[in-house]
Amino acid sequence: MKVPKISEAVVKRLPVYLRYLNNLKAMNVRTVSSQQLGEALDLNPAQIRKDLACFGEFGRKGIGYEVNYLVEKIKSILKLDQQINVLLVGAGNLGHAISNYNAYLKDNMKIIAVFDADPNKIGKKIANLTIQPLSELKETVKEKSIRIGIIAVPAEAAQSVADCLVDAGITGILNFAPTNLRMPEDVRVHDADVTMELHSLAYYL
Amino acid sequence: MKVPKISEAVVKRLPVYLRYLNNLKAMNVRTVSSQQLGEALDLNPAQIRKDLACFGEFGRKGIGYEVNYLVEKIKSILKLDQQINVLLVGAGNLGHAISNYNAYLKDNMKIIAVFDADPNKIGKKIANLTIQPLSELKETVKEKSIRIGIIAVPAEAAQSVADCLVDAGITGILNFAPTNLRMPEDVRVHDADVTMELHSLAYYL
Repeated sequence: MKVPKISEAVVKRLPVYLRYLNNLKAMNVRTVSSQQLGEALDLNPAQIRKDLACFGEFGRKGIGYEVNYLVEKIKSILKLDQQINVLLVGAGNLGHAISNYNAYLKDNMKIIAVFDADPNKIGKKIANLTIQPLSELKETVKEKSIRIGIIAVPAEAAQSVADCLVDAGITGILNFAPTNLRMPEDVRVHDADVTMELHSLAYYL
Repeated sequence: MKVPKISEAVVKRLPVYLRYLNNLKAMNVRTVSSQQLGEALDLNPAQIRKDLACFGEFGRKGIGYEVNYLVEKIKSILKLDQQINVLLVGAGNLGHAISNYNAYLKDNMKIIAVFDADPNKIGKKIANLTIQPLSELKETVKEKSIRIGIIAVPAEAAQSVADCLVDAGITGILNFAPTNLRMPEDVRVHDADVTMELHSLAYYL
């Protein structure tokens, strides 16, 4: 399928649609209108129609969108029809919490390896994964075709961990450390920094 | 200061600018150009100039932006010149991890209360805060003028916790639970769901 370049805002909304559509699918709901989606997700129905129209003519007037079809389309757009293996660096409280999200990660995406710099943690388990030393990172990325890395280490260690990830061939990073990573242009970094989320929320108070 | 309505994308970038500018300030750097900001933050300098121009004429040609002045302006726009008290519901691994961000939260914003539904956790401490029962939430919100609530509970419990927050008068929610919250229109919810972050990252692989 040919997909045009779409805006970051749309890419961020697609997983929101997908999560809700997956719920509808699980409840055997067959069609949904942009009105219903808008109400459930607190978004403007016109915005939703516009977002989904980026990818072709999904909806039918008076009927709405076919749930199963839309789920498959969004999964394909987000490349979730491929197997995407994820690794996690940092096995502290945050790493534990993140690995718990594995239960919610369907669609061929899974955290399959965990690394930590602390020798005392190596060999222990979180969420059924054995904590490995950073020295094994590069090899594991190749062996297990890992494509995304999650950074859940303190701010001071984040840049050097990110450099290791890039050196191992990772091109997508989800960064929980409250620091700006300097990365090559072909590496995509999403910041999931709690402080920044709270700061942007404050604007709306 | 009169501030026009600005787009969500800009509101999300302001904390990124602020974090970096605070670093510059700590290093006694006095001025910065949009080029320097762009390189450091991997953003287009023209975009940065456009974002900051929403709030007035901050920069000067050939000199750039005054760091201290810009920090104060962004803080005022984000309302971080006010005291903003935050509460956290959920004292599991995720709650622990989130409370650790308190060390990075400056600018008058702090997590000052933690709640959990588990009777075994009540009275214990995380990050110097004593875990309180949910029955004390409403009273604590009033007493301590809490304005933002962070939800770090399992998906099944998230909606009822959110309802409690709204009932207590909270109008800003940061939701870590992988579920769509149904909220009144005047309540602002930001989702910080790891699964959705990973799904949108996959698009760029």
